[in-house]
Amino acid sequence: MKRCCLVAVGDELLDGRVTDTNTDYLARKLSSRGWDIVFRLTVGDRMELLAETVSWVCRRSDLVVITGGLGPTEDDLTREAVSRALNRPLRRDGEMEARLRSYFSALGREMSPSNARQADLLDGADWIGPRLGTAPGQWLEHDGVIVVLLPGVPRELTDMMEKDVLPRLEARFPGAGLAVGRLLVAARPESEVGEVVSAALKTMEGLQVSYRALTGQIEIRVASRDEEKVSEAVRRLREALGLWVVAQGEESMEEVLGRELRSRGLTLAVAESCTGGMVGERITGVPGSSDYFRGGLVAYTYEAKERLLGVDRGLLRRKGAVNEEVAKAMAEGVRERFGADLGLSVTGVAGPGGGGEREPVGTVAFGLADVEETLAMKYRLPGDRDTVRRFAASIALAMVIFRLRGVRVEEVR
Amino acid sequence: MKRCCLVAVGDELLDGRVTDTNTDYLARKLSSRGWDIVFRLTVGDRMELLAETVSWVCRRSDLVVITGGLGPTEDDLTREAVSRALNRPLRRDGEMEARLRSYFSALGREMSPSNARQADLLDGADWIGPRLGTAPGQWLEHDGVIVVLLPGVPRELTDMMEKDVLPRLEARFPGAGLAVGRLLVAARPESEVGEVVSAALKTMEGLQVSYRALTGQIEIRVASRDEEKVSEAVRRLREALGLWVVAQGEESMEEVLGRELRSRGLTLAVAESCTGGMVGERITGVPGSSDYFRGGLVAYTYEAKERLLGVDRGLLRRKGAVNEEVAKAMAEGVRERFGADLGLSVTGVAGPGGGGEREPVGTVAFGLADVEETLAMKYRLPGDRDTVRRFAASIALAMVIFRLRGVRVEEVR
Repeated sequence: MKRCCLVAVGDELLDGRVTDTNTDYLARKLSSRGWDIVFRLTVGDRMELLAETVSWVCRRSDLVVITGGLGPTEDDLTREAVSRALNRPLRRDGEMEARLRSYFSALGREMSPSNARQADLLDGADWIGPRLGTAPGQWLEHDGVIVVLLPGVPRELTDMMEKDVLPRLEARFPGAGLAVGRLLVAARPESEVGEVVSAALKTMEGLQVSYRALTGQIEIRVASRDEEKVSEAVRRLREALGLWVVAQGEESMEEVLGRELRSRGLTLAVAESCTGGMVGERITGVPGSSDYFRGGLVAYTYEAKERLLGVDRGLLRRKGAVNEEVAKAMAEGVRERFGADLGLSVTGVAGPGGGGEREPVGTVAFGLADVEETLAMKYRLPGDRDTVRRFAASIALAMVIFRLRGVRVEEVR
Repeated sequence: MKRCCLVAVGDELLDGRVTDTNTDYLARKLSSRGWDIVFRLTVGDRMELLAETVSWVCRRSDLVVITGGLGPTEDDLTREAVSRALNRPLRRDGEMEARLRSYFSALGREMSPSNARQADLLDGADWIGPRLGTAPGQWLEHDGVIVVLLPGVPRELTDMMEKDVLPRLEARFPGAGLAVGRLLVAARPESEVGEVVSAALKTMEGLQVSYRALTGQIEIRVASRDEEKVSEAVRRLREALGLWVVAQGEESMEEVLGRELRSRGLTLAVAESCTGGMVGERITGVPGSSDYFRGGLVAYTYEAKERLLGVDRGLLRRKGAVNEEVAKAMAEGVRERFGADLGLSVTGVAGPGGGGEREPVGTVAFGLADVEETLAMKYRLPGDRDTVRRFAASIALAMVIFRLRGVRVEEVR
């Protein structure tokens, strides 16, 4: 496998206040095409350290992608540092300079002299873009290593990767790409999923399998150079995991939920307690969700559960708010009040306070009401407040997906 | 300034599927104490590359913190790689081995032979922990460089940093720390805040000032070796920014909101449209929020706004859902239905669809009702669906904070 190293340049990335999203993006794009990412490095705007870094990584990689430090200010040192590290002079390119100048005059502004530095090209390099900003990238081949310089502004970088760098890499290394399959499983422990996956794929060789535990969801990825092998693995996994697969390909659980509701012409309303609005927020994060989402009620008190959702006061007094009966009453109440086809409910103890009275922290009950019946279940979820809430929201969404596919909750547990 | 380098170890961190949060945490902790972070590096589980990396960074730093690769499996190479890079043998420590064994037996399990590898100590190093897991860290001083090995599990790492590493660094380099002041400003454009800050601090020298734009909030940090200078800068900024400061120190806006409501014995209920539950979710992310949060209603349709919040049908027909009148009616409706002291509302067009009919994408109206009066305002927010929603949620929370401090919305705009 060809080795790749990613270098992000900028003081603002070092001290933890600005999060570098570019490198994650580049890593995903390149590793899914078969590049072996061996290093990720972040360096500040210091000439000597930057030049040392470039020469160090160039001795250990087939491809080096350097992002940031291509702007017009004196802090933008990437061009000069690469020039020093690889001993390749920079030359001002009159054509690019004119192009930048006309860009500024189109905006009714005059180009400052410092912007002309962006027209300095490494000896032997080609320009990449720019289509969106004023920072062109550069592509250089040096002693068998491809060195790519890209601007740090995410949308400029993405544009150049998609339109210039990835096609050119594909042309240089045809068929280097990996085929990748992805499945999303919900509401099941990771250890159990791991066993099912191992058993299903145990006779298949030359397949990379990886897991990523999201809260309440597990992403399974299978990759291989052989596209048919990936299809076969995905087929086996779907069969083995059955009901548990909530999404496939690049879809999110929220998108699948929306698609399944829309295709059946059904609407949904949500009653939440411990998740405080998170279920609604996730559902409405999908554009067009107003087609199937009627709304929600966050009933954080006994009184709200009783007055606004019609949960029986005696029941709340007797059994507290975290149990299947209350979850059912909340689901039925919100379904009726919003005039929705499906009513979903979540009620639990996210902690750190509030546990122990009747139910320990992490106990969450779920309800789902439709025209035929109302189902409910109770889980004990691990983790801190935030984890319990996110876990509960994922299970709630999965519960609706399972139900739409005709699976009873009891079968799913 | 003393130089520090952070190295994260693990294949799972390289390809962009698992986000490394440890390094951001370490960078914030160390840079706020005056350490100059010069490199951040991520390396996979490969002996040769890892050892080369360690020896490379040790030649360029006064402190190297290496996280991950301290587990019991064969993939956990950090101990061995550091041993090779610095030419320091590993020795099995019988005392630590016995301690790990008793940890397992307390859980009713037998320690596997591979776990004993976690008791291998670098020659000349001290143990750090473990208090939470089975992976002890190590502290080594080598040729004037401090090398710290920490486990990759975030809560184990945080525990060791707070209780062992930071105190020991402080003892070794007393007064190396920077004083840092932090203010959070909401609902105001970054450019405007920048101008106010520059003017307020223009006569002060030797102060590091930095901004971080969160969606709808701007974090301002001032840092200096001189603690009094930081206090003076914070005082000036509070005066210049006045009403706009929603939080100070390490508090979040949600925490301030909770504190201000609790201290006044007031309760809040929220009616949301485009934010879909995000406002409630943020409020209830704070432990103990049930003391002041009554609940919320997500009214995603005209019908829900009318039936469940009592918004006038004729008004919705005539003027649509995104205007001050509807926002006021929603705020009053939710206040009344939940029996809360304050009713807050958000109604807008987050896009990408739904704009243009009456209001363009990004238009959001806010309402706030209390016992005296109901206020409303309308904003035009930039960005995509997710950005508009997060921006709107921040403004809504800020609106409550401003009101509790006796500021009328009109003064705030």
